[in-house]
Amino acid sequence: MQVVIKQLCRRITQSCIVTEHLYRSISSTVSLSRQCLGGDPRSRNIFVLKEIDVMDPKIEEQLAPFRQAVKEQGDIVRQLKADKAPDIDLQRAVAELKTRKHALEHKEIELTPKDNFDRSKMEDLLKQKFFYDQSFAIYGGVNGLYDFGPMGCAVKANLLQAWRNFFVLEENLLEVDTAMLTPEVVLKASGHVERFQDYMVKDVKNGECFRADHLIENSFEKMLTDKKVTAEVKEQIRKILPTIDNMDKDEMGKTLKQFNIKSPVTGNDISDPMEFNLMFATSIGPTGTLKGYLRPETAQGIFVNFKRLLEFNGGKLPFGGAQIGSAFRNEISPRSGLIRVREFTMAEIEYFVDPQEKKKFFKFDSVKDIKLTLFSACNQMDGKGPEAKSLKDAVADGTIANETLAYFMARINLFLIKIGVDETKLRFRQHLSNEMAHYACDCWDAELKTSYGWIECVGCADRSCYDLMCHQKATGLKLVAERKLDKPKTIEVVECKVNKGVMGKVFKKDAKVVTDFITRMEDNELDAMDKILKEKGEFEIKPNDQSFVVKSDMVTVNKFSKTVHVEDFNPSVIEPSFGIGRVMYALFEHNFRMREGDEQRTYLSLPPIIAPYKCSVLPLSNNAQLMPFVNQLAKDLLKCDISHKVDSSTGSIGRRYARTDAIAIPYGITVDFDTIKEPHSATLRERESMKQIRAPISELAQIVYDLANHRRTWDDILNNYPIFEQQESTK
Amino acid sequence: MQVVIKQLCRRITQSCIVTEHLYRSISSTVSLSRQCLGGDPRSRNIFVLKEIDVMDPKIEEQLAPFRQAVKEQGDIVRQLKADKAPDIDLQRAVAELKTRKHALEHKEIELTPKDNFDRSKMEDLLKQKFFYDQSFAIYGGVNGLYDFGPMGCAVKANLLQAWRNFFVLEENLLEVDTAMLTPEVVLKASGHVERFQDYMVKDVKNGECFRADHLIENSFEKMLTDKKVTAEVKEQIRKILPTIDNMDKDEMGKTLKQFNIKSPVTGNDISDPMEFNLMFATSIGPTGTLKGYLRPETAQGIFVNFKRLLEFNGGKLPFGGAQIGSAFRNEISPRSGLIRVREFTMAEIEYFVDPQEKKKFFKFDSVKDIKLTLFSACNQMDGKGPEAKSLKDAVADGTIANETLAYFMARINLFLIKIGVDETKLRFRQHLSNEMAHYACDCWDAELKTSYGWIECVGCADRSCYDLMCHQKATGLKLVAERKLDKPKTIEVVECKVNKGVMGKVFKKDAKVVTDFITRMEDNELDAMDKILKEKGEFEIKPNDQSFVVKSDMVTVNKFSKTVHVEDFNPSVIEPSFGIGRVMYALFEHNFRMREGDEQRTYLSLPPIIAPYKCSVLPLSNNAQLMPFVNQLAKDLLKCDISHKVDSSTGSIGRRYARTDAIAIPYGITVDFDTIKEPHSATLRERESMKQIRAPISELAQIVYDLANHRRTWDDILNNYPIFEQQESTK
Repeated sequence: MQVVIKQLCRRITQSCIVTEHLYRSISSTVSLSRQCLGGDPRSRNIFVLKEIDVMDPKIEEQLAPFRQAVKEQGDIVRQLKADKAPDIDLQRAVAELKTRKHALEHKEIELTPKDNFDRSKMEDLLKQKFFYDQSFAIYGGVNGLYDFGPMGCAVKANLLQAWRNFFVLEENLLEVDTAMLTPEVVLKASGHVERFQDYMVKDVKNGECFRADHLIENSFEKMLTDKKVTAEVKEQIRKILPTIDNMDKDEMGKTLKQFNIKSPVTGNDISDPMEFNLMFATSIGPTGTLKGYLRPETAQGIFVNFKRLLEFNGGKLPFGGAQIGSAFRNEISPRSGLIRVREFTMAEIEYFVDPQEKKKFFKFDSVKDIKLTLFSACNQMDGKGPEAKSLKDAVADGTIANETLAYFMARINLFLIKIGVDETKLRFRQHLSNEMAHYACDCWDAELKTSYGWIECVGCADRSCYDLMCHQKATGLKLVAERKLDKPKTIEVVECKVNKGVMGKVFKKDAKVVTDFITRMEDNELDAMDKILKEKGEFEIKPNDQSFVVKSDMVTVNKFSKTVHVEDFNPSVIEPSFGIGRVMYALFEHNFRMREGDEQRTYLSLPPIIAPYKCSVLPLSNNAQLMPFVNQLAKDLLKCDISHKVDSSTGSIGRRYARTDAIAIPYGITVDFDTIKEPHSATLRERESMKQIRAPISELAQIVYDLANHRRTWDDILNNYPIFEQQESTK
Repeated sequence: MQVVIKQLCRRITQSCIVTEHLYRSISSTVSLSRQCLGGDPRSRNIFVLKEIDVMDPKIEEQLAPFRQAVKEQGDIVRQLKADKAPDIDLQRAVAELKTRKHALEHKEIELTPKDNFDRSKMEDLLKQKFFYDQSFAIYGGVNGLYDFGPMGCAVKANLLQAWRNFFVLEENLLEVDTAMLTPEVVLKASGHVERFQDYMVKDVKNGECFRADHLIENSFEKMLTDKKVTAEVKEQIRKILPTIDNMDKDEMGKTLKQFNIKSPVTGNDISDPMEFNLMFATSIGPTGTLKGYLRPETAQGIFVNFKRLLEFNGGKLPFGGAQIGSAFRNEISPRSGLIRVREFTMAEIEYFVDPQEKKKFFKFDSVKDIKLTLFSACNQMDGKGPEAKSLKDAVADGTIANETLAYFMARINLFLIKIGVDETKLRFRQHLSNEMAHYACDCWDAELKTSYGWIECVGCADRSCYDLMCHQKATGLKLVAERKLDKPKTIEVVECKVNKGVMGKVFKKDAKVVTDFITRMEDNELDAMDKILKEKGEFEIKPNDQSFVVKSDMVTVNKFSKTVHVEDFNPSVIEPSFGIGRVMYALFEHNFRMREGDEQRTYLSLPPIIAPYKCSVLPLSNNAQLMPFVNQLAKDLLKCDISHKVDSSTGSIGRRYARTDAIAIPYGITVDFDTIKEPHSATLRERESMKQIRAPISELAQIVYDLANHRRTWDDILNNYPIFEQQESTK
């Protein structure tokens, strides 16, 4: 069950995996993904290859023994699996493997040259320009809840619009928008009521709650730097530290006791660990009898609509459902800003395929040569790093389970780069078999490197037919598609007709329960019932542990042969699942910049499709003669639905440029005194290069439209209009 | 308080007002609003004036006595108000006025010629094409929750995008995206915890709940058609029926007893009415001590961010905050499909203005000549119908309170028409003073006529400074803006410095409570405290009913004069509030059509900006030679981000056109056998006229782009390309 809990948590892309890795040989991915994107005017970010940390041989030398240690233990685990060794032995070996992997990762972090990213500077900018901030701050704030201000809200809306165009439109997905309030029965079926939980402990005096694994981790880290703690205890702690993720309730309880861990706030004793379900509960309707939850993921809204969507698609597979929406998770201790929150936006795809056909995918050819940075389970066990591999090769050598999964990994990769993710800080990490849910065939996380480490931002899993089967079992409805048979075949059918009249008379209000139970019986069960009915005239059934006696006059079981041309099957589902808040956070980090030589001039280098405003319009001074041109430009831009900001405040033009850079505005039009002369013209500045051209005022809206929609590049504009050097600030 | 309850309910545009009215003289509004919209290619909907029900003199003759009766009573109410008559007399007179208004409205409905709209046919179409349907249907469904399928979801996304362009972009609003989970303290301040409620009764045996007013209404309607009920009782019922809306708990209880009303389902006795708060409660965080609710409206998220938004706007007024998002209301008995649901999308604007300046609005000139259909409070009291009036006149004669409010009413009107609302089924109804919250200055509802009657879909209220004041009072933070004074003035300042050291020592953990209390004291209170402190050396304060004694050494009160150049003020707020689900539902009704002569060919005539797909691409037959052209067209459309649907299924081209009409696709490209010939061309069909032209294949994507974005009209296309008559289905 532990495995399933982890998988459920992971599915909503809320867990935080802080690992770190050095890059090698991924430069080839850059050029390829750029090709697939088409022209992107952000010269600095995509058109110029970034310098990539190539492995320093000296560092590699220091890492070699750590890599070797992981590999040795990985081999032991493999051997135990091959030998079908007892579970307990395997578990021990896996724990040791994890310890060694963590040691390798920590060493890597230690040796990685630090970049000059300054998180507090970025957070200042985001807060000051109200990209986002804590919710209800005037009431003291609530942990884990964030409000997006005008800039953050525009970035989010642009990101979601880009997602819709890239996935829903291009993949012809069937988008739905389903209820967030979800009755308990649905989330029981999906497994969330039973298993979507973390362990927590309480301060025995004031009731304050802590997530047990976080508390152990933080206490350990403190003890490791505490001079009063003996070397022996520190050695013990170092051994246990990497196993915390895998601890069950009892092990956590033992560890807390063993190290005498107290509340870090009050120093009071704490309780034993207890399960805490992470869903927000509420009651639907006035009676208080219909228990519900706020959905913990958007996926279930697609699964429960599977039949309608299949019908909408003319009964044909493959097709994908998609949903963008809010999900909720009552975190015990939210932290790391936007990365672990209680209310967040997801964008999920459930792509339904015939399991017999998922090995091949009809669009795979279009992506097969793209190279991704893959951190395979195998490499993780061998102590190796991620490596760039073409999808064709990755599917051929079995690294990725099938073409359908590989296709969506490619699309995720392309999308992330398109919206401004730094491709040198993007990798796909495969789940190890012990991380993966028992029903999943293969699962990869697109991880983005941030100052918090590698953060899982998009999951991409082959979930086989697990989810639909859950709902099929719970509802008794067949959630299947049909596949044409090569040749007709003859099957044996067992059919059970219920005599509703007799049932109703005998069982009254329970008739439905009995009928439902019989309807859900499998062929062999019906067969058995029929036999006993024929022998004894009655048969006992026990729906929901109640006992009912079915008699011969209530049901008629028929068996016959039938020739069929189609057969039913439960579709597999490939699930790309985006945590939008996390992607946004990584985008901010990847695009945070300082102007050379001026640390105070921080800005965001977001691509035009994501930038909150596409364009600024700045009158050089507040001279009244300039305003008609400013107004005309604003009107022209509005006509093309281009979001823009007029800044006619006082302040030098340089200061106003800095202000528009800070909120990521990629293009700026300045109306100056030459504008007044005929033919009227104005200057256009690009944020990255800070270069300017001069163009006729009548052409500017169209130029910005073309740039913002990636129809022309800035280089193209530079080649076609006269370069402009600098405005004089007044005349 | 009754008044406030109604107002709160109304604000979230969930209440259903079923009234009906005949139109007169509104044709002039049509041409005006069309002008302001710019070109719209939907020739049938906007460019051709619709025939409007002009008042039939015979009908007017029958209505005359009803109008007269309303007017007489309206005059009595006015007189009583002018005389400042006792409340009880006024209430009685208002109740009688309502009775007469209802009688007039019922007569009008009775006499209105019925249109041939068939709701069940429309619902069939919407369900079959999965625009929306009940949530969790495979689990039996949940009342009041709906899932939008691919078509509904696309309509909603397009509607919200149009809203964002029309309001956020064009009005430069500051859009936010704030938390739905809201701590109780915030909703206590806003009044929702205390007053956002309906009355319900319970079946005493099985606990089933009914909304008390609905139950009385439904029971009365049944009794009125019951032959066993005496004429005398029916007369009584007719008298009480119109007063139900205004009943308090006791009156409802009395009425239920008087008419011996039972559960309509079981016939069991029912309980006395009880208050039921309509918010969904939950608990935030693991301790269970932080009570929260799902927000009942998006507005509060803007108010609590007022200070951040003001700062973002450089401290300047006016500016507007906006939010699109979900809100939740635990309806006792959801009904009328999308109109009364438990989870719904709102789009709200809070436009903050200096109350001294709202009479004039800087953009009012651009809308002043637009005529709206106004159903003023005055006309309602006089028994008259709505009338078309220019905004200039309506503000001048005091019908609409100020230019700012009038401006937003105009914008709402223009937006609704742009997205496809039938302008003959749109009116603005003013709240009567007894419907309006005590703090609101003026309030109008944009009502759309549907088969459920006139439905309030957009509210537009001048809420004065009520909301910010609520949060200011609760938090002790000044939620104010600054206004420059014409000339500096000298003010007396009373300032209180708290000696935190002494406070902390004496009051320990209560020090914050004491300090907060003192910080919030008004000048005169500080003055009084200072006097007593000087006399007695101590002063008692009672925050939250606890008693604390403040001593002289804890505080220092200073009084001095100060010259100031600015003064603080609490901004007024104008609030346009859209119920998106209701607008969508009305859109579906207003755009539901049947082809002449074929009742089975139902379709939706949504404008291109709202239609789920903009274009279909249909190969005439499944001949392989046609497919490369289909694929090329699909690619071209994708490049322009035009949503489209390829339908290469078998079936005659006519049947496929009917299928694309049903899901409102405005344009259809058909690839036929002439396409193969050079120069390659294909046909383009428009949904409303069903006319077709033939155009070069390379131009088609651009043509559709221009049409879908209102850059060209269909008439223009007809004039520039050869008309095409009909495809032969095979060759």
